[in-house]
Amino acid sequence: MAGLRVCSVLVTGANRGIGLGLVRQFLGMPSPPAWVFAACRDPKGQRVGVGTDLPFVGSAEVTDPASIKAAAARVGEHLGGSGLNLLINNAGITKLNSLDNETLENMTRIYTTNTVGPLLLGQAFLPLLKKAAQGSPGSALSCSKAAIINMSSYGGSIASPSGWDLMQIVSYRCSKAALNMLTKCQSLGYREHGILCAALHPGWVQTDMGGSIGQTPAVTVDASVRGMLNVLSSLAEKDTGTFLDWQGKVVPW
Amino acid sequence: MAGLRVCSVLVTGANRGIGLGLVRQFLGMPSPPAWVFAACRDPKGQRVGVGTDLPFVGSAEVTDPASIKAAAARVGEHLGGSGLNLLINNAGITKLNSLDNETLENMTRIYTTNTVGPLLLGQAFLPLLKKAAQGSPGSALSCSKAAIINMSSYGGSIASPSGWDLMQIVSYRCSKAALNMLTKCQSLGYREHGILCAALHPGWVQTDMGGSIGQTPAVTVDASVRGMLNVLSSLAEKDTGTFLDWQGKVVPW
Ligand SMILES: NC(=O)c1ccc[n+]([C@@H]2O[C@H](COP(=O)([O-])OP(=O)(O)OC[C@H]3O[C@@H](n4cnc5c(N)ncnc54)[C@H](OP(=O)(O)O)[C@@H]3O)[C@@H](O)[C@H]2O)c1
Ligand SMILES: NC(=O)c1ccc[n+]([C@@H]2O[C@H](COP(=O)([O-])OP(=O)(O)OC[C@H]3O[C@@H](n4cnc5c(N)ncnc54)[C@H](OP(=O)(O)O)[C@@H]3O)[C@@H](O)[C@H]2O)c1
Repeated sequence: MAGLRVCSVLVTGANRGIGLGLVRQFLGMPSPPAWVFAACRDPKGQRVGVGTDLPFVGSAEVTDPASIKAAAARVGEHLGGSGLNLLINNAGITKLNSLDNETLENMTRIYTTNTVGPLLLGQAFLPLLKKAAQGSPGSALSCSKAAIINMSSYGGSIASPSGWDLMQIVSYRCSKAALNMLTKCQSLGYREHGILCAALHPGWVQTDMGGSIGQTPAVTVDASVRGMLNVLSSLAEKDTGTFLDWQGKVVPW
Repeated sequence: MAGLRVCSVLVTGANRGIGLGLVRQFLGMPSPPAWVFAACRDPKGQRVGVGTDLPFVGSAEVTDPASIKAAAARVGEHLGGSGLNLLINNAGITKLNSLDNETLENMTRIYTTNTVGPLLLGQAFLPLLKKAAQGSPGSALSCSKAAIINMSSYGGSIASPSGWDLMQIVSYRCSKAALNMLTKCQSLGYREHGILCAALHPGWVQTDMGGSIGQTPAVTVDASVRGMLNVLSSLAEKDTGTFLDWQGKVVPW
């Protein structure tokens, strides 16, 4: 992680699972970011697993444009004149439906959280990301300068949609393929602002979601997050608009 | 088109554009299908451009599960004991938004029409498609036996999202990338039932949608449809789950 020097980072879905792991490792760095915004939809709710050692817990329901805008305003206030270096769109949901029992409601709900949420967060935090890019020396893209990282999944790879026999999860797969497309669009649209955009697959990770199919996932939260932070530290100009796993391997679209 | 011998076909969005072109060319074949179901959302409405020479115009609003189920029931009655060989999910919408002014409402509306619609149509017509496959000799997949064809777009190619500088249309791109994933899922789920599933890019075609960016598209409806019917006639086992253009070239995911 030698290369990752962010002043500020925001992680959505940060109260448990991979999001919480990300926040913990950011805080545990030798020189941690000055601002770690751990966003979750219900910071006061019982489901929040984060300790009181967090610098700031922002409330953000990623399916609600007003909640996202309010979060961006609050984060802007906290940052004073500084920008936001890193936005990690981690919040996500799935449902173990099959192709046969997938519904309109489920398709829409999962798309709204997994795909539309990251679009709206990108829009709302764009001014702060731009500010970070402008305040950073050099023109080359990097996560230390300004970046949007979208948490995607192997399951969203159209070329090789892994795990079909285990779980069909069509709504989840469609939402993540669409998230990959959004990542590509964000990389094209935000490049001129100095913002790197990439999609990551975190591995099959020991979280509520990872364990929901009734088998124990291969990767611990700790190992997944360590791998991803290592990948983030190495991302450069050529990596914007790509889809990588937690070990830095390119995942086919 | 020598190889395409379907007894029955249903096309959604068949009152204008590519859908209407498909219906016309099916009816103009030397030995046309016995049943051509031209489905549109408002068969009595002013926007219906089809003549009264159509064997049957079924009403199907592809965002409404009840309307789709009713259409499948009516088609089943018309077919008597026969199955449906070919379902062409052609209905689609776009909106010329940019990355910056894309909204939750727009993302959801376009996804519902372009992605969820084809899922629901596949589910509703599955029994009739299965029946066609069972009634067809031989085990190899083909469009003459039973197939679902989803009308996708180059714009939905994540690897090379064509036309970005001309139109960002993020909601459309995301919906078509997700439709490509749906096509892959349908190909995996319906293979055991003898149903081929593929995504097609029709070319940049002279229709209301194709012309909406203010330039004249390169391909006529006639040429696009002729090309696509030729492609359909050649699709075999190896092509299920693929993404091809109207000239038969593989489009990258
Ligand atoms: N675990 C895996 O094996 C795996 C594999 C591939 C990809 N991923 C992706 O990695 C990301 C994190 O997954 P995870 O395994 O950590 O999942 P998880 O343990 O189920 O946690 C999901 C997190 O997302 C939050 N969230 C869900 N909907 C939200 C909304 N509308 N607004 C705000 N927050 C919301 C949850 O908050 P609440 O506590 O309020 O529900 C929770 O913090 C997801 O995008 C997932 O698709 C995971
Ligand atoms: N034209 C191109 O250059 C191009 C390029 C790539 C892909 N495509 C794809 O090709 C397909 C056909 O496009 P087109 O150019 O023929 O478009 P078009 O001229 O705009 O026609 C769209 C058709 O879809 C129908 N439709 C829209 N929403 C519907 C709904 N909710 N329920 C039922 N029918 C609905 C429309 O019916 P109404 O008349 O009732 O609105 C109309 O019949 C689309 O999927 C499009 O994405 C087109």
